[in-house]
Amino acid sequence: MSLKTVEWKDNSVIMIDQTKLPNILEYVTYTDYNQVAEAIRTLVVRGAPAIGVSGAFGLALASLQSDATEKNDLISYMENAKKILFETRPTAVNLAWGLDKIMEVANEASSVEEIKKNVVAHAKKMAEEDIQINMTMGKNGSQLFNDNDTIMTHCNAGALATVGYGTALGVIRATKDSGKNIKVIATETRPIQQGSRLTAFELKHDGIDVSLIPDTAVGYSMANGLVDKIIVGADRILRTGHVYNKIGTYQVATMANQHEIPFYVAAPLSTFDMKSNPEDVIIEQRKGSEVTGIGDKKTAPDGINVINPAFDMTPPELIAGIITEKGVAKAPFEESIKKLFQAN
Amino acid sequence: MSLKTVEWKDNSVIMIDQTKLPNILEYVTYTDYNQVAEAIRTLVVRGAPAIGVSGAFGLALASLQSDATEKNDLISYMENAKKILFETRPTAVNLAWGLDKIMEVANEASSVEEIKKNVVAHAKKMAEEDIQINMTMGKNGSQLFNDNDTIMTHCNAGALATVGYGTALGVIRATKDSGKNIKVIATETRPIQQGSRLTAFELKHDGIDVSLIPDTAVGYSMANGLVDKIIVGADRILRTGHVYNKIGTYQVATMANQHEIPFYVAAPLSTFDMKSNPEDVIIEQRKGSEVTGIGDKKTAPDGINVINPAFDMTPPELIAGIITEKGVAKAPFEESIKKLFQAN
Repeated sequence: MSLKTVEWKDNSVIMIDQTKLPNILEYVTYTDYNQVAEAIRTLVVRGAPAIGVSGAFGLALASLQSDATEKNDLISYMENAKKILFETRPTAVNLAWGLDKIMEVANEASSVEEIKKNVVAHAKKMAEEDIQINMTMGKNGSQLFNDNDTIMTHCNAGALATVGYGTALGVIRATKDSGKNIKVIATETRPIQQGSRLTAFELKHDGIDVSLIPDTAVGYSMANGLVDKIIVGADRILRTGHVYNKIGTYQVATMANQHEIPFYVAAPLSTFDMKSNPEDVIIEQRKGSEVTGIGDKKTAPDGINVINPAFDMTPPELIAGIITEKGVAKAPFEESIKKLFQAN
Repeated sequence: MSLKTVEWKDNSVIMIDQTKLPNILEYVTYTDYNQVAEAIRTLVVRGAPAIGVSGAFGLALASLQSDATEKNDLISYMENAKKILFETRPTAVNLAWGLDKIMEVANEASSVEEIKKNVVAHAKKMAEEDIQINMTMGKNGSQLFNDNDTIMTHCNAGALATVGYGTALGVIRATKDSGKNIKVIATETRPIQQGSRLTAFELKHDGIDVSLIPDTAVGYSMANGLVDKIIVGADRILRTGHVYNKIGTYQVATMANQHEIPFYVAAPLSTFDMKSNPEDVIIEQRKGSEVTGIGDKKTAPDGINVINPAFDMTPPELIAGIITEKGVAKAPFEESIKKLFQAN
């Protein structure tokens, strides 16, 4: 079984500390929602679906932390916790999705006790559903990949980006489980190196053949016929098919297009933002020290400017298909995405 | 004045140890050509023009090391040294160019003493010419850039890639010296980080405004209108205009093309290989540990495969112009490049 990224146990949240990977596989236990917020902010947990469930777990913790005796007081305590949890990562839509769901459940309950019982139960249900959704998505996506394909992926859209199994890497797992022989090329994904630290780590953990490349070797790998298909995850997908994902995704998609290599995105419906337009989406800008060094090793001089966006936007015309738990959307995306939600 | 990368002094070769940058600016002194070969192999010195002159200096050292009393014995001693020096970096054409020139001078001389005198003198002349060529190239290229341009560059084609002043960064220096206000965006250039360690270092050293981006943010920077023009160096240019340069150059050029941003290459005529065809060029593959860690910091699990090519090929159709000391070649390149050599 692939790794379990985030889990609810005995009224506390247990997570793999992904900042310690690939060198140490260490689990941390939180009983305070502020710890969960800090964990999301500092990338102890990352990946849109994992952040969504972590936010829900955090809000469930908040409900247990509150000493409110009236429903309204508990709700406003949770509203404040929701705000703190939400502000940790503004781009991933799953975080807002997870937090809203929990507040919905809280508001529907009639008593303080019922709120606490129901939000914990629902957060746990969301975690279980995440794995089920990824397995269904995997089955849907596996039909797009052939025996002996070499599949390139960027960043980590794996078990470590979800509760378990993964989105993009879930499709890769399902393809392998369907009896097809596949190989994976993982990009390093600077500055945080989710590709080398996490994707290479979890694929090796599951015995899937993985080759690591620096982000600079994407074009070389495609030009030299080393890549048959590409699959990535997403942090937010608009109704128009615009995909927001880890910085570097846009140039991987552009190079794929240049070399006529199919570029796929795998994400659950919870990743879709059916309201926003491209101009509404805030791209999170992260601190320069992520780029000027690796860990405590300095690799750039002091006093220079740094541009360090966490995400970029891939336009629909570069995307061969968006794989979800409800099926695969293809161009024209505005129609096909709408159909996925009608099927819902 | 910009940094002096490699220098001949009192029958020894003095180099900046570029593996220590940006943290320490340290000079090393070599009196044995095997030390120079090791320095080229381990990237103490790198950059096609700097390697060309370093090879010539190394071969000059070899002539002084030999205790041969007959011309033929000295020549065969030098031929062996040439072989050892050449095998350090197979792709950069300047290395072969520098070594061949020195052997030519050696063969023309009539006595052991004359060989030693002439090869040292000629190697020193090549170093002086390198700076002169870069300054002329800079003047030729500066006319292509406008006031308030933001110029993206990849890897390091600067003073630290040459004897001094630089090729691509020489053009940037000349543009600034011509009174135009310019800014530079430098890509990190994984795995060796010549962009953050060297380009950001030497531009800051010269007071030129520089912003660092991870290699993954090339597409984002262009899509968001942050880049007006691009300039890079080259390790080898074929008569057809195919450019071999640091891994990642091809995708920078493709993204530039996608966004209709002019992509320029700056290189001296010594970088041109008028004989080879693309299929003849060997792309140097470097060790995986450059990608699985940074310095001694491990960033990937053990036992995974790594693809780590040092260079990639950018086809002529992506190139707006190739800037040389003899003028700027533009499409159709086969003609315009031939003209540069006729003018020679």
